Amino acid sequence: MCRWLAYSGSPIRLEELLLKRDHSLIDQSLHSRMGATTTNGDGFGVGWYDEEETPHVYRSVSPAWNNRNLKELASAIKSPLFFAHIRASTGSAIQETNTHPFRYGKWLWMHNGLIRDFSTVHRTLANRIDDSYFNSIEGTTDSETMFYLALTFGLQDDPVAAVERMIGFVEETGHKHDIELPFQGTIATTDGTSIWAFRYSSEGDSRSLWFSTAMDQLKHLYPALHQLDNLSDETRVIVSEPLGDLPGVWNEAPESHYGIVQPGADKLGPFTPQYS
Amino acid sequence: MCRWLAYSGSPIRLEELLLKRDHSLIDQSLHSRMGATTTNGDGFGVGWYDEEETPHVYRSVSPAWNNRNLKELASAIKSPLFFAHIRASTGSAIQETNTHPFRYGKWLWMHNGLIRDFSTVHRTLANRIDDSYFNSIEGTTDSETMFYLALTFGLQDDPVAAVERMIGFVEETGHKHDIELPFQGTIATTDGTSIWAFRYSSEGDSRSLWFSTAMDQLKHLYPALHQLDNLSDETRVIVSEPLGDLPGVWNEAPESHYGIVQPGADKLGPFTPQYS
Amino acid sequence: MCRWLAYSGSPIRLEELLLKRDHSLIDQSLHSRMGATTTNGDGFGVGWYDEEETPHVYRSVSPAWNNRNLKELASAIKSPLFFAHIRASTGSAIQETNTHPFRYGKWLWMHNGLIRDFSTVHRTLANRIDDSYFNSIEGTTDSETMFYLALTFGLQDDPVAAVERMIGFVEETGHKHDIELPFQGTIATTDGTSIWAFRYSSEGDSRSLWFSTAMDQLKHLYPALHQLDNLSDETRVIVSEPLGDLPGVWNEAPESHYGIVQPGADKLGPFTPQYS
Amino acid sequence: MCRWLAYSGSPIRLEELLLKRDHSLIDQSLHSRMGATTTNGDGFGVGWYDEEETPHVYRSVSPAWNNRNLKELASAIKSPLFFAHIRASTGSAIQETNTHPFRYGKWLWMHNGLIRDFSTVHRTLANRIDDSYFNSIEGTTDSETMFYLALTFGLQDDPVAAVERMIGFVEETGHKHDIELPFQGTIATTDGTSIWAFRYSSEGDSRSLWFSTAMDQLKHLYPALHQLDNLSDETRVIVSEPLGDLPGVWNEAPESHYGIVQPGADKLGPFTPQYS
Repeated sequence: MCRWLAYSGSPIRLEELLLKRDHSLIDQSLHSRMGATTTNGDGFGVGWYDEEETPHVYRSVSPAWNNRNLKELASAIKSPLFFAHIRASTGSAIQETNTHPFRYGKWLWMHNGLIRDFSTVHRTLANRIDDSYFNSIEGTTDSETMFYLALTFGLQDDPVAAVERMIGFVEETGHKHDIELPFQGTIATTDGTSIWAFRYSSEGDSRSLWFSTAMDQLKHLYPALHQLDNLSDETRVIVSEPLGDLPGVWNEAPESHYGIVQPGADKLGPFTPQYS
Repeated sequence: MCRWLAYSGSPIRLEELLLKRDHSLIDQSLHSRMGATTTNGDGFGVGWYDEEETPHVYRSVSPAWNNRNLKELASAIKSPLFFAHIRASTGSAIQETNTHPFRYGKWLWMHNGLIRDFSTVHRTLANRIDDSYFNSIEGTTDSETMFYLALTFGLQDDPVAAVERMIGFVEETGHKHDIELPFQGTIATTDGTSIWAFRYSSEGDSRSLWFSTAMDQLKHLYPALHQLDNLSDETRVIVSEPLGDLPGVWNEAPESHYGIVQPGADKLGPFTPQYS
Repeated sequence: MCRWLAYSGSPIRLEELLLKRDHSLIDQSLHSRMGATTTNGDGFGVGWYDEEETPHVYRSVSPAWNNRNLKELASAIKSPLFFAHIRASTGSAIQETNTHPFRYGKWLWMHNGLIRDFSTVHRTLANRIDDSYFNSIEGTTDSETMFYLALTFGLQDDPVAAVERMIGFVEETGHKHDIELPFQGTIATTDGTSIWAFRYSSEGDSRSLWFSTAMDQLKHLYPALHQLDNLSDETRVIVSEPLGDLPGVWNEAPESHYGIVQPGADKLGPFTPQYS
Repeated sequence: MCRWLAYSGSPIRLEELLLKRDHSLIDQSLHSRMGATTTNGDGFGVGWYDEEETPHVYRSVSPAWNNRNLKELASAIKSPLFFAHIRASTGSAIQETNTHPFRYGKWLWMHNGLIRDFSTVHRTLANRIDDSYFNSIEGTTDSETMFYLALTFGLQDDPVAAVERMIGFVEETGHKHDIELPFQGTIATTDGTSIWAFRYSSEGDSRSLWFSTAMDQLKHLYPALHQLDNLSDETRVIVSEPLGDLPGVWNEAPESHYGIVQPGADKLGPFTPQYS
């Protein structure tokens, strides 16, 4: 089981969320509290935006907790929007191309969960990916397959509809192969401006997804927390598992919902897979 | 451009051919003499057989020349049949799953060369691979795609016919996409008993392939070379580029030919791709 | 906190103890039960003997649990005497030269524990190492420093006396720097014939050390356990933490003791650091 | 033989010098033209400054030419002063802690060359390093030993004098051990404001060192070279080997000289080792 984090708001150094806080993502990689797998030592990745449209991606197969280069980068790089992911492999090879976040053009994608009996449905799912994306596939994970399926279903035009079709297709395909509960997990994707996060599972008992409270409320709640002073009201963090345990900071996304963090008002909506 | 070596005969420690000789494979990785690419620093792999049917495979993405673990293993492991390969990537990711030799069941496969415009034909070629092999594909190289195509075309029953059909299919597919000269290279494959080696290119000007002279002749030629004393008459080495320059040791395979090193008399025959 | 295992007896494939058993060493690397640190993901190493006097060493900085090369090697290599170690760094860099077992000539050395406030005493300890060993030091760990100190104090002639002098010197040096409890841990060392294992800490509350029961008794105790059939009566395993929980198999070494597994009768004796 | 580059001037993305130009540093890592070793595949490092005083350092043991993370970083990081180094090991282990540039506080250090018979003099040199630096030493190279010796001799107060004393001490120590020509190489060091570069060898035939022509002259020389437009007049590059072969751009430092690139007028002076 993986762990991930998505940040959008005032530019901050990555280390603020990856390394410094109590229950930071790196700390979670050693001892996760809610995870299905105790240790997330099978690699990590970060993707971030700067003034260019295409995000940068740094991925490594070594455990995050002792990786010096990650510490150096996290202290050097400032970004208004970034993804970070720590991996616990569910079987596929430990290699950079199997490490999240995945990138296509200006889009990033990361995932926590799995397609059940993936080896049974892998080829059928892969065959549905549009030719234009085929040579961009570099790894063998279910997560990357989902990304290119979502792109095939129109991720760049309507992300919610595309993910609904993608998960619908995964469920349909699974059911054809007698897989009862084909999909489980949370997904985050971004175009560098907005972030879409999804919580869904075929069994209706999905892995956790949390949104941080609106920044103006947080500042009101914790006037003495001066580290918030420089953060804009639109600053928001989405996580698979809360960072720290300050009351009032984290709000769990409801089962089978998606959320959009975007310029202007954010949005929460029900998520329903679409069948073809 | 890669370099490879296949050994069959009296059990020897891998280091005898990988490390110790003048122009050993590791030495070639730093400065190849005939290669299209000067440096082969994009990983290496060895595959070897012992009393079990399934071969062992050790692969690494670090350059071979300074890899301490490789030196330890090469001095520890003795085998009557092994493959070794050093890689110069022609573009695909530097990761263990893109490193030769590839293994399926008791079979090993390695390759030096390329499918031209592979990104154009990759999906068509991949689609032809039989479902039963799909989940065994872990990387993104042309070399691995060829292996699973050859398996699809019956490698385990008739290796020469299967490789002729595989290369025929590669050429047909390439021609359909206006690729004039789709295939170039040498291939070695083994089931742990025999070794099949192929030299072919669409342009009729293939990368080099050399077989060592029969051991009884070599002993006669070099009676003072006592390192040959313990080698059986059937001992044979096949290489992409000669190890050392002792006259009479290495014999170049003719253009568009295959050779079989096997118990009993070895065999050399003309190679002709088969079209469907 | 690290984990280690030492084997001596009938030649077996390394995988028998590293991978196959319940609570194997690799399984422990993900979830140790008695360890001070939950996860041992900072590299691993194995050292083994064959017909040559000098042992082979394979070390890697990647976590043991998902390392494919380790699985290949462990299934390929058979040895009558081997060491295996999984590391949880207490601070020094994650690099092969900081990974156990350490080797000098025909000797291997591994350790679980620490020299407290090592940075304070490191230089004084290092200065005591004999010139003849200086260029063999490649890493920066307390464990390697102890090894070369023990060599300086005569490890090759009288291992127990040398380790008693080494730990005495570590304690003396620590006390001079107001370090109350300088030493904690277990150590194993071997010359390829005998294994010496030590359990000691300045506080008299040392990390655990276990010896397997004599093989003839084990066979009597578990007549149906046919995996023991091919093991000689002298076969013995020493571990930092039991592999499996079969009653009667594992015997804890008493506090402040050493044990010797050797041809003929094994030995257990009290351990007392020697001051200069 | 290594290759290195130091940049000071208008903030630029690292990729401008590491990746983009003809004969960029990465290109040199595959095929150096003047180097003693053809291939520099034993790791690389970059060190750079931003608004903080302490520089960041990113180091890797994989070959630079195919390292994707390096490409991502080089395109993401902008800096007014950075060092880059590609390594060809002269024997010591391939590990990050042996990779340049080395860092202490706000200082960076890198080197191309060697201390001859280093294993003979290593301990004597190491013993001269001040206690306050001992625990900062993490690797085993001659280059890092020189850095801490130079710090011991006052690098932070008077860099030229400290390096003259350091090399004097290396020569004295070598001569005591009958090493005729103890030192060979070029060195660059910086505090984040100025860069000091040294060219010296005991034999008076040192590895090359080049300074770029003053930017105002370059702009005058090449008015059509618009990539120079955004570079301040103080922008300067120092390299072990020229990047590209545009006439008038590169000026070789004379034998036994040092140069200082600093705010205000740069400086060139004769270099003479100081004996104690």
